[in-house]
Amino acid sequence: MSNNVLNFQSVRLDEDKNVLVILDQTVLPNSTSYLELETVEDVWDAIYKLQVRGAPAIGIAGAYGAYLGISKSTCENYEDFYAEFMKVKERIASSRPTAVNLFWALDRMEACLKQNKDKAVPEIIKALKAEAHFIRDEDEKVCKAIGEYSLSLLKPEMGILTHCNAGTIATAKYGTALAPLYLGAEKGYNFKVFADETRPLLQGARLTAWELNEAGIDVTLICDNMASIVMKNGWIDAVVVGCDRVAYNGDTANKIGTSGVAILAKEYGIPVYVHAPLSTIDLNTKTGKDIHIELRPGEEIYKTWYEKPMAPEGIKTYNPAFDVTDAKYITAIITEKGIAYPPYEESLPKLFEK
Amino acid sequence: MSNNVLNFQSVRLDEDKNVLVILDQTVLPNSTSYLELETVEDVWDAIYKLQVRGAPAIGIAGAYGAYLGISKSTCENYEDFYAEFMKVKERIASSRPTAVNLFWALDRMEACLKQNKDKAVPEIIKALKAEAHFIRDEDEKVCKAIGEYSLSLLKPEMGILTHCNAGTIATAKYGTALAPLYLGAEKGYNFKVFADETRPLLQGARLTAWELNEAGIDVTLICDNMASIVMKNGWIDAVVVGCDRVAYNGDTANKIGTSGVAILAKEYGIPVYVHAPLSTIDLNTKTGKDIHIELRPGEEIYKTWYEKPMAPEGIKTYNPAFDVTDAKYITAIITEKGIAYPPYEESLPKLFEK
Repeated sequence: MSNNVLNFQSVRLDEDKNVLVILDQTVLPNSTSYLELETVEDVWDAIYKLQVRGAPAIGIAGAYGAYLGISKSTCENYEDFYAEFMKVKERIASSRPTAVNLFWALDRMEACLKQNKDKAVPEIIKALKAEAHFIRDEDEKVCKAIGEYSLSLLKPEMGILTHCNAGTIATAKYGTALAPLYLGAEKGYNFKVFADETRPLLQGARLTAWELNEAGIDVTLICDNMASIVMKNGWIDAVVVGCDRVAYNGDTANKIGTSGVAILAKEYGIPVYVHAPLSTIDLNTKTGKDIHIELRPGEEIYKTWYEKPMAPEGIKTYNPAFDVTDAKYITAIITEKGIAYPPYEESLPKLFEK
Repeated sequence: MSNNVLNFQSVRLDEDKNVLVILDQTVLPNSTSYLELETVEDVWDAIYKLQVRGAPAIGIAGAYGAYLGISKSTCENYEDFYAEFMKVKERIASSRPTAVNLFWALDRMEACLKQNKDKAVPEIIKALKAEAHFIRDEDEKVCKAIGEYSLSLLKPEMGILTHCNAGTIATAKYGTALAPLYLGAEKGYNFKVFADETRPLLQGARLTAWELNEAGIDVTLICDNMASIVMKNGWIDAVVVGCDRVAYNGDTANKIGTSGVAILAKEYGIPVYVHAPLSTIDLNTKTGKDIHIELRPGEEIYKTWYEKPMAPEGIKTYNPAFDVTDAKYITAIITEKGIAYPPYEESLPKLFEK
């Protein structure tokens, strides 16, 4: 395996320039270009426009964004500084509503700020920078652990279907759903991976197929509506996906289309593995019904990236960015603390006690 | 309802010029342009390139193509003329392998030729032209009958999901799966239609959404992978689809993705109605396993219509144009002779006896 793609850093702080450098995921695979984000609005835009995407990467970008937003603060007392931070936090939190990592990372930054309340403002700013770095570094370890647990469920030569991109560029490193594929490749597992293109924004075609191809992993690109036939052909032994939020009962919000893939997998007797850092598991969200699903502009369906509109101008559309896969279709939820099996109401809380 | 779209003729013979005029379905909805086909190779290209598409329309185009191919024959005896016809027939039959209407229409033309074997060649040519016209006219009646039977299963205000395009431009008139929607609109049924965009060639976005929008029918465009969420939202009361070939046991080949939609519908308790002219039912094909599935170039997935490639150059792909929906997922098969219910091994043959 060529592991170069694992050395891409999709989100990093350039400390000399004090800017957030992100890999622009909207122009892949045709160009590998980096954006320098200086302000909170820059970070908000990059998250909203999906230039940085993937729940863990959004969390990391949000943490660095919160730091950047107050790094030049001229406040002299804690109360003013806290108020300034909270404005920054709320603004960044408004960029995307579904993934819980963003809120989780911003809450960690707020907690860090409060823990350092007795220090001078410049010292608090330093602590916030260190916390953002810590969130990033921790994510890499979390992803590797998820990959190792996931790999224990897979066997060499397996056919694997994945949807959207839960790969290395969606995280600090390794990815979540793709982590077992990278770790398996290192051991010569020779997986045959099928990547759903993942409409409308083609994260599967542009990002997953690109990532795995760069790494020398056998990957076949299909349209989302071909998942049924490849399963029927007997080519798929497991479905691996990431997630944006897991509820207390195991219901899982992930990229639109995941629920359909999971239902098909159940019908064909194929296990579905959700890869979830604990930071994406929200025990305060009781079921999937409590997860707010982001609706995005309909033009993403019939205009984005096309030479000409692919539907009549002004056509009515429905464009949810995510859907909720009911827990009953999920074979296991794989975290950095171990693997949870149904009933998730029991198994998920236990992971937080470890 | 504005019915203008029903007056489009997607396939017609211009008798003055002796050319086949087809609506170029590859440039819709941005342009409504017609192509004049003069030779067998023109017809072959138009079918292969999907400029004319939809099982019934392909059958009609095939019939006219067979006529055109021998309309200027200089043969003077039946044997030579028959040999010339068979070359034309075989060439046209090789354009697309899955839809059975093409073979059915060509077989009818051959049977017509044989019935007229005692006539002079110019007279046989006239008979073949008349037969092609008859196939076209008959398709319109067949579609209307299918629409009426289908409408008897639907109720006003229903939410209807459709996949691909089995609309008026895929047939002589009315369509198959969309026929009940046009007939229902005339009665003020006020259906809420959801059209799967239907990757990779977007027949749902470019053709179905366009057709229904032109007709003033309420249509919402979604990506294929959103079928699960709209069903889960409770917005869908029935799935209506066309077909390219129905086997003796009811297994149905239709546009890639249909099998996935049908499995989802079963899971959500929604009926699936396949709309099938008898000409698409092939009792000689025992099960879906005997249906040859056309594989098309992978570039349709990541290049066609995009400004730039949406996956790395040379990426491995799998691009079947159709899939087979097992009979167990099909609630009813609606034909011009009535509605067949499971077990289809019993109900389908009976329709041919009527």
